[in-house]
Amino acid sequence: MNTNYSSAKEIYNELLEICPGRVQDNESIRRQHGDDLSWNTRALPDLVITVRKTEEISTILKLCNDSRVPVIAYGVGTSLEGHIHAPYGGVCIDLSEMNEILDVRTEDMTVTVQAGVTRMQLDSHLRDTGLFFPIDPGADATIGGMAATRASGTNAVRYGAMKENILNLTVVTADGRIIKTAKRARKSSAGYDLTHLMIGSEGTLGIITEITLKLHGQPEAVSGGICPFPDIHSACEATITTIQSGIPVARIELLDTLQVKASNQHSDLSLQETPHLFVEFHGSPSSVQEQSEFFQVIAQDFSGGPFVFSTKTEERAKLWKARHDALWAAKSFVPDTHMIITDICVPISSLAEMIDRTQELIKELDLTAPLVGHVGDGNFHLFVMVDMNNEQQVANAKALLEKLVELAHRFDGTCTGEHGIGKGKIPYLEKELGKDVVAIMKSIKRTLDPNWILNPGNIFEI
Amino acid sequence: MNTNYSSAKEIYNELLEICPGRVQDNESIRRQHGDDLSWNTRALPDLVITVRKTEEISTILKLCNDSRVPVIAYGVGTSLEGHIHAPYGGVCIDLSEMNEILDVRTEDMTVTVQAGVTRMQLDSHLRDTGLFFPIDPGADATIGGMAATRASGTNAVRYGAMKENILNLTVVTADGRIIKTAKRARKSSAGYDLTHLMIGSEGTLGIITEITLKLHGQPEAVSGGICPFPDIHSACEATITTIQSGIPVARIELLDTLQVKASNQHSDLSLQETPHLFVEFHGSPSSVQEQSEFFQVIAQDFSGGPFVFSTKTEERAKLWKARHDALWAAKSFVPDTHMIITDICVPISSLAEMIDRTQELIKELDLTAPLVGHVGDGNFHLFVMVDMNNEQQVANAKALLEKLVELAHRFDGTCTGEHGIGKGKIPYLEKELGKDVVAIMKSIKRTLDPNWILNPGNIFEI
Repeated sequence: MNTNYSSAKEIYNELLEICPGRVQDNESIRRQHGDDLSWNTRALPDLVITVRKTEEISTILKLCNDSRVPVIAYGVGTSLEGHIHAPYGGVCIDLSEMNEILDVRTEDMTVTVQAGVTRMQLDSHLRDTGLFFPIDPGADATIGGMAATRASGTNAVRYGAMKENILNLTVVTADGRIIKTAKRARKSSAGYDLTHLMIGSEGTLGIITEITLKLHGQPEAVSGGICPFPDIHSACEATITTIQSGIPVARIELLDTLQVKASNQHSDLSLQETPHLFVEFHGSPSSVQEQSEFFQVIAQDFSGGPFVFSTKTEERAKLWKARHDALWAAKSFVPDTHMIITDICVPISSLAEMIDRTQELIKELDLTAPLVGHVGDGNFHLFVMVDMNNEQQVANAKALLEKLVELAHRFDGTCTGEHGIGKGKIPYLEKELGKDVVAIMKSIKRTLDPNWILNPGNIFEI
Repeated sequence: MNTNYSSAKEIYNELLEICPGRVQDNESIRRQHGDDLSWNTRALPDLVITVRKTEEISTILKLCNDSRVPVIAYGVGTSLEGHIHAPYGGVCIDLSEMNEILDVRTEDMTVTVQAGVTRMQLDSHLRDTGLFFPIDPGADATIGGMAATRASGTNAVRYGAMKENILNLTVVTADGRIIKTAKRARKSSAGYDLTHLMIGSEGTLGIITEITLKLHGQPEAVSGGICPFPDIHSACEATITTIQSGIPVARIELLDTLQVKASNQHSDLSLQETPHLFVEFHGSPSSVQEQSEFFQVIAQDFSGGPFVFSTKTEERAKLWKARHDALWAAKSFVPDTHMIITDICVPISSLAEMIDRTQELIKELDLTAPLVGHVGDGNFHLFVMVDMNNEQQVANAKALLEKLVELAHRFDGTCTGEHGIGKGKIPYLEKELGKDVVAIMKSIKRTLDPNWILNPGNIFEI
């Protein structure tokens, strides 16, 4: 596929007719829409359009497809692998104003939202319904972005990730067709699963504009707390045993010593400076008590504890806020450095060994890299702090990434549990799944987007 | 796409070289592989090949693709929508001898099996591991077939359907490439979700040869039982309330009066001749007790009961065997008739109304049609008993199908919850999802199978 795209500026006037007063080309807006937390090379879109309706997106896409102008969907810019960078310029479609919660069906435990609704907005909206939506990536991402990157978060160990919690999607295809991928029934075997094909397609197969989500009942009782461990290996072993024992833990999150220090400082905590598990149990009052006690015994078996658990909402909220702010804590802990975020996920039986090897590598390569993890899923992240002017350090960070992915593959794991491929992980995709799989993915891309206008340079090189 | 296929007989000798002694062309074998329980017109394959290795299938597919010979994957022939009929002839690939359980990983709660392993075989194999695989369509289907049709069963309300319980697939593509769709990590956001694209593709995008499944811990305690209701509407309302109350019911199955009569006769039961719910709860001893008692109260609120529950394995096993044998019970209840099986799934809030209307329609059209349902998912089946020589009855049965699908669509439901589109439901797919969606599905089909050799006439007309 050639990379001779047209500039979005050539269709500026037509775009302005579609979205009067909502097409912007000034640099600060473009920069805001082409910048993110990733370490990938920034690249700005030519124009930013704020859309309000699925039909507008359809008209824009028809135009861009006919003119061969790249199109990048944008929610609130919290993706972590350079998804929103625009190496070929083009139109950035900002969906943040499409933030209406369209249809809450408490009796069916479903909600339909526009793509620009954020997870915290949805959270507040649902608070009085007795229901909740469990998927919670660290940032206050949009539901559309979370669908597009196949995101998950701390509750996935119990409630599944985005891919388990979406019933249907409204999608605008590259040539402007508006499709709905499925009905609202909880199960269906009607034809190919376009819903899942779109989930995790990172804006390269279509633009998601509406999402119907499965909701879950707010648990009658919640119990949770924190448990220190003498070392990270025992924390991992305790996690593995918890999962293998079939305790339906709702959250089980690991913070290593460095991250605990960072979070103490950033989130005004006073945790003992040693690895910690943050855990939470959902159920009836007797069941959360039972689960907490069972976990306590497991933790003790691995020299962990004391496990302090509480059913008080405020205390728990403070801890979980600290967990969600881990990235910011790490960032302010080592100021003036760049942060490279990794996202390894391995089968749980290999987690302890994988993390042991990771820590050894960090030491060998003389890097600073706090670790947090959704360890119940075998998923963890490093915040690798890099002084981009220090060539040796940059080289070491890159070496670490390579080695981690190699290791993960050896354990039958993945280079990305929940952040996606984006720009940064393109070379790893082929290493992970092989040339044939990537060729098949690319053939699907070419079929659904023959002019390759949707988020070019993402998932694959053009 | 033209329908000028070559006959498999033209490549008989080459096929014999690939699978010496395992290529059969006698009519009884062909009939056995082209016949099923559906009411669709039978059509036999030209040849049947029994395969033993993924690599053999790869070689066969290369050959068939080059010669443009249709290929139909066959497990044990329990599909219900004519999936295995071969309207364009071709090679039937019988996978039933690829029935090895390759890799049980108790510590990761996963198992990798060959496609020909049946669910009961897997069940026995796992019995001593403390783990189980919950998906249980009525028949003893193969795991490959269950993946290919996006099957589910009685446990789906709690544990999800096939699509929620598969980690990766080994697939042979139309041109003979062998791919693995994902690693064994529990989560991944690495590129397009080819796993889910293949699940439910009904043998039209590739042939599934190995499957890695998620397993679940055998519940510490199981409690279950049966609950009569004065009418089907109250049974539905009790189901809806149970689901909406967030009781994590493992199974909740409806049998209408006619089905109860049939099952009494076939399975040596003595249930009161009135609609029944069969329910089951999984958890700790205290939790199943709690759930059972909660359900009992709900049932009473809807004039149901007495709810007799028991934790005794044999009693429960007899009931669930009767439930799984419902189809055979219906078949022997009205002998010498043909059976048309429907598969409607609607959002749970519409279930009671949908079933009320269904019963009215059955009466209006003067049909005999026992009803069973995985009602916790909003999914139910009719066994419409039809004397194929009675033209009026056949016409009425067809009218019933049409009307049911129309109704389901009005409730935002689907024409197929778990049986697939196959041959019988092709016209409904477009009604359900629209021309554009079907066009997109077909474009994916053409991309992955340009010669349209894989199970032609299935999901779409050629």
